[in-house]
Amino acid sequence: MKHLRNADAPPVVLASQSRFRREMLERAGLEFAVDAAHVDESEIKLSMRQAGASVEDVATALAEHKARRVALRHPGTIVIGSDQMLDCGGVWFDKPADRAHAEGHLRALSGKTHRLVTAAVVFRNGTRVWHHTESAKLTMRPLEADFIRRYLDAMGEDAGSSVGAYQLEGLGAQLFSRVEGDFFVILGLPLLPLLGFLRAQGVIPE
Amino acid sequence: MKHLRNADAPPVVLASQSRFRREMLERAGLEFAVDAAHVDESEIKLSMRQAGASVEDVATALAEHKARRVALRHPGTIVIGSDQMLDCGGVWFDKPADRAHAEGHLRALSGKTHRLVTAAVVFRNGTRVWHHTESAKLTMRPLEADFIRRYLDAMGEDAGSSVGAYQLEGLGAQLFSRVEGDFFVILGLPLLPLLGFLRAQGVIPE
Repeated sequence: MKHLRNADAPPVVLASQSRFRREMLERAGLEFAVDAAHVDESEIKLSMRQAGASVEDVATALAEHKARRVALRHPGTIVIGSDQMLDCGGVWFDKPADRAHAEGHLRALSGKTHRLVTAAVVFRNGTRVWHHTESAKLTMRPLEADFIRRYLDAMGEDAGSSVGAYQLEGLGAQLFSRVEGDFFVILGLPLLPLLGFLRAQGVIPE
Repeated sequence: MKHLRNADAPPVVLASQSRFRREMLERAGLEFAVDAAHVDESEIKLSMRQAGASVEDVATALAEHKARRVALRHPGTIVIGSDQMLDCGGVWFDKPADRAHAEGHLRALSGKTHRLVTAAVVFRNGTRVWHHTESAKLTMRPLEADFIRRYLDAMGEDAGSSVGAYQLEGLGAQLFSRVEGDFFVILGLPLLPLLGFLRAQGVIPE
């Protein structure tokens, strides 16, 4: 793996168990540890929704919760928390738990435009120092039932790895007719703004 | 590798030697052969430029040349040709031949916005049946000479693999402050329109 970081940079911790986020940061040349926070997401989502919060508010709050919890365990580090929400016509989707759930997602998203909202929050020395929340719009073509079945057969376990049961950088490309927005945001991190912040913090070189 | 294609689909040939294009199509679940065409690109570019052609015209013509040449060798198939041009303030960049050339590219692009123009042309049974040309805008942050040196050290051979001497999906993410446009177009193929066409041709399932 190729690295491009400052030798005297403070250590960085990624507070996420997402393989996609880890790979995205690794490919961009960052060095970091991974320590995933376990947060009761559904409770936070439900209570914030009842209080009238927007999907952006909730994604940012979840990213902040994760970063704060991990920051407590790693004093003196820079901790990146992140979250992604999927909103389709006011309905918020959760990561599919099983194949039937993934199939329900794809049926519900078929022929419609949905929004992925991606938040990143950074803590340094226990304090929130930065955040960025950005969304992308994706339009799924109308999918036939037989296509969904074949798609899920081909995806296997990976269907549960993202909130929309798709991977745009893989087979998921066959689901969409139109994609508007930053690709990194779709994959789960606002990478360019995050790298800009880490550059300003001296983690990666100018 | 996971596939999602129709069993009775006509064979597909990719007329490109680009690893990125091959991987992009493989990840999207397509099955195809690769047969790269060797076309004298610099002569075509020069003569078209002198005749007043736009960068879009040239990218499309180069993609068409490659597809046509390969189509002659593979009757009865669907052949995909493609090309990508980089235009920065009216200057057209070529793929860097060596490290000094790549360094020159990065110095010239530093602090500026450039355009990547990506064309794909499809031949079927020897006839051009489809094309799509689309561009993306990328803004490089101002790069210090020391950063360019370290970046090229880390990239090694890969610096010569793309026209701008960067890979946005890898270390190249550290070069940019802003990216506008489709990610697949930036990587070298207008993937979603191309998949839409291949779907209409019965190559991949509806």
